[in-house]
Amino acid sequence: MNTQNAIAKWEIFEITLHGKTEGNPFTDYTISGTFTGEKEEVTVDGFYDGDGVYRVRFMPSHEGLYHYVITGSYTDATAQTTGQFTVLPAREGNHGPVHVADTYHFRYADGTPYYSIGTTCYVWELESDERIAQTLRSLSETTFNKIRFCIFPKHYDYNFKEPRSYPYEGTPMDNSVLTEENFWDYTKNPLENNSWDFTRFRPEYFRHIEECIYKLSKLGIEADLILFHPYDRWGFSKMSRQVDELYIRYVTARFAAFHNVWWALANEYDILEKTEEDWDFIGELLQSIDPYGHLRSIHNCIPFYDHTKPWITHCSIQRQDIYKTVEFTNEWRDKYKKPVVIDELAYEGNIPHFWGNITAEEMVRRFWECAMRGGYPGHGETYLNEGPVLWWSHGGILHGESWKRFKFLYDILCETPGLGLTSDAKQDYNGVTAVPQDETERANKTYFIYYYSFMQPAYKKFSMEGKYEVEVIDTWNMTIEKVGVFEGTFKIDLPGRPYMAIRLRKTTV
Amino acid sequence: MNTQNAIAKWEIFEITLHGKTEGNPFTDYTISGTFTGEKEEVTVDGFYDGDGVYRVRFMPSHEGLYHYVITGSYTDATAQTTGQFTVLPAREGNHGPVHVADTYHFRYADGTPYYSIGTTCYVWELESDERIAQTLRSLSETTFNKIRFCIFPKHYDYNFKEPRSYPYEGTPMDNSVLTEENFWDYTKNPLENNSWDFTRFRPEYFRHIEECIYKLSKLGIEADLILFHPYDRWGFSKMSRQVDELYIRYVTARFAAFHNVWWALANEYDILEKTEEDWDFIGELLQSIDPYGHLRSIHNCIPFYDHTKPWITHCSIQRQDIYKTVEFTNEWRDKYKKPVVIDELAYEGNIPHFWGNITAEEMVRRFWECAMRGGYPGHGETYLNEGPVLWWSHGGILHGESWKRFKFLYDILCETPGLGLTSDAKQDYNGVTAVPQDETERANKTYFIYYYSFMQPAYKKFSMEGKYEVEVIDTWNMTIEKVGVFEGTFKIDLPGRPYMAIRLRKTTV
Repeated sequence: MNTQNAIAKWEIFEITLHGKTEGNPFTDYTISGTFTGEKEEVTVDGFYDGDGVYRVRFMPSHEGLYHYVITGSYTDATAQTTGQFTVLPAREGNHGPVHVADTYHFRYADGTPYYSIGTTCYVWELESDERIAQTLRSLSETTFNKIRFCIFPKHYDYNFKEPRSYPYEGTPMDNSVLTEENFWDYTKNPLENNSWDFTRFRPEYFRHIEECIYKLSKLGIEADLILFHPYDRWGFSKMSRQVDELYIRYVTARFAAFHNVWWALANEYDILEKTEEDWDFIGELLQSIDPYGHLRSIHNCIPFYDHTKPWITHCSIQRQDIYKTVEFTNEWRDKYKKPVVIDELAYEGNIPHFWGNITAEEMVRRFWECAMRGGYPGHGETYLNEGPVLWWSHGGILHGESWKRFKFLYDILCETPGLGLTSDAKQDYNGVTAVPQDETERANKTYFIYYYSFMQPAYKKFSMEGKYEVEVIDTWNMTIEKVGVFEGTFKIDLPGRPYMAIRLRKTTV
Repeated sequence: MNTQNAIAKWEIFEITLHGKTEGNPFTDYTISGTFTGEKEEVTVDGFYDGDGVYRVRFMPSHEGLYHYVITGSYTDATAQTTGQFTVLPAREGNHGPVHVADTYHFRYADGTPYYSIGTTCYVWELESDERIAQTLRSLSETTFNKIRFCIFPKHYDYNFKEPRSYPYEGTPMDNSVLTEENFWDYTKNPLENNSWDFTRFRPEYFRHIEECIYKLSKLGIEADLILFHPYDRWGFSKMSRQVDELYIRYVTARFAAFHNVWWALANEYDILEKTEEDWDFIGELLQSIDPYGHLRSIHNCIPFYDHTKPWITHCSIQRQDIYKTVEFTNEWRDKYKKPVVIDELAYEGNIPHFWGNITAEEMVRRFWECAMRGGYPGHGETYLNEGPVLWWSHGGILHGESWKRFKFLYDILCETPGLGLTSDAKQDYNGVTAVPQDETERANKTYFIYYYSFMQPAYKKFSMEGKYEVEVIDTWNMTIEKVGVFEGTFKIDLPGRPYMAIRLRKTTV
């Protein structure tokens, strides 16, 4: 079967065709499809999926009847492949792809606000089937709605084993020589130690990743796909411009039709050998060939990329300072005028690496501090407690305490009037005063969250015009105490311990 | 009795004389003394102490026989007042005044290293006798060896009552009009609301402060005397240059002979209306008239004073950032090349003021973080738990948990080879690696403290030449576990909780 008669909006309409196998079908032939509905006409490239099979994928953004035409040199047949299908309303739970909204925030295509609560598991999808199933079970118990992971395998502490398979035809180096002491050496000349044909993809490698992306979509989780990263002994971080382009075109053709895909150009771009021109080339290529405009970012190790560049939709940030991290959210929002996603604000855990051993309390504090400033924090876990499987790298089971507290935060974020929060510059320096981004809400002073972070004031005095419903929120113990409706000058008592907040909501009652 | 025959080194030799009372003895007459021993000749001004009594005070820095000559217009007598006395060895516990040593550290005059563990009680000495006695009892149970406090009374939240007395003859404003809301208004034009004769001191005011300084000295505590501060409804912050000079000369004549005096020109100099020239005038005046070279500093609210100026002996710092504070110790040391005393790194407590509500854990963390970087942290407490007496302002009883943990830190500091610590730039970013300031000790790699701050690594790997005695230190629970002697490559396990440290001491055993 290579067509369907009907499909729900924001799902994948896929056309499967047979074509030429001689030579190198990955590079020698073309295939593309044009999909025409009442409200859009989209042309996409297809891809070779091995065994003589070519596929063209399309994600419709509107309901109604669509026609399509497939063309290309993949076949010598003279008759064009055409057809039609109907796009039905979106299935429950599919809100469409996420885009930037109101400058600093996100929204699904159906208008639902998207409050990103991310995690990082760099190569969870290259683990065994059992581990992958375990990771998906773990994710299903969390509030995470984004996971950041790599397409290419990872070579780093706690992760020297071989991935489940390889993206290219060829032969990898022998990993039995590796130790924690020498592993960096093997990142230096990987193209000498490995032998790949970079013009021949292994379709099953990408097919497997697609299955993972699909399973994430069923859990309501965005797949923040890292296209390049430096922790590499195979050479996938040091390919030529031409090979990079082939790879980007291939993954775009395969993955872009998944509504939950985000493009993360790099983890720690500054550790790779690519130039700014290389990154701009890749970013602009993606921008031009991805018909859905999926979100695009580039993540730093130390210096930030220039996030003002037009191909970058949002900031994906690793903290630069050990002590002060998400507190910079305001500055970064002001500087880049884009959503600020702090994907690496350190990991909850206990490994010796300086970025991998904060407490659950500090992780939750950083989540609130970031979210209250109108940014989007990212989680990760690096507990060594039970052997060498670390969530940050492999997925598996969550051992920490912070993740259990994100649903509480998320539910509160979902109560924001409008699309997201920002912080009030006229705050009292006790933590942060969160207010809606929406100008009307702000002008009408409808909503305030005073988040006290590590501070522990015993009370706060207010002087407000109008009536406010007041709640005392314990962000760590996840309690909301309704303390009443107040107006004018009033004093709200706090328990004098850290991680507290006060929420004020204007009421006419 | 106006002379003694013998006195211990670094105690006060005081000559009491009767003189003229007509006119204004505070301004109309002079009195000074020259004290000559084998190793020093010191000339000091005396002061009028009321009731026709003039005093000249001298603190000898050497043992042996001294002669003195008193001169001045305080008397019409034609015969000079002269005499001699013997200076005996210092009494046990009196190490002499503290001075800067090895650029970044302090040492008592007898060579003993001075590791400053300070606290702030702004006007504890202007409280009732009972409260003062209570404060001194509290201090006697602590490790504090410096207390920062004001000579002039303080007008601020939780402290609108009258001080026990006034430094000048005159009439203060009525304080019954004051509220937390309007109190700032009364700091604006205090010279209009109060009536003082700034040329006539009230000697009993200063006599009382001397008694407090003396009692502190008996507890081994340095008196870090704040000469000016902005929290003032009486006008003592807005006196003329001439009146300031009279005041500085008077307190120098009275207080400088106390071995435990430090001069803090200001609390929050930048909130006062004085110019940089005013401050330099005061600082240079002190430098020229204080024969003992007591330590001199100037404390900021927000911008730092230029601590490179020669009259400034050390940095006295209030943190500028809410989140990152003592972690700047390295930068400030590098910038000013002087000891860095962080006197206000926020207060342990629960008041609503953003600077007054950190936890005990965070206070202790900041103390270690500062000390391990070769700086000197300062404590303060602002707990509202039991009424309006707050240690930070009034003294009284300590309610917190941090102060109980400073003896542990202090004892460890006292084990530093040499005069103090610095931090190793080649650290691993997990907290801070403390090493001795002493170059030889550093070159010989004798001593390391790896302080992990809020991080919680489960282990650390070492690769050391030579044998090291290794201890695991829990800075919060105050335990030191000796884990053995190690050499070469070794791994030290940690419990995976915050506030831990590892100490390595080179051994030949």
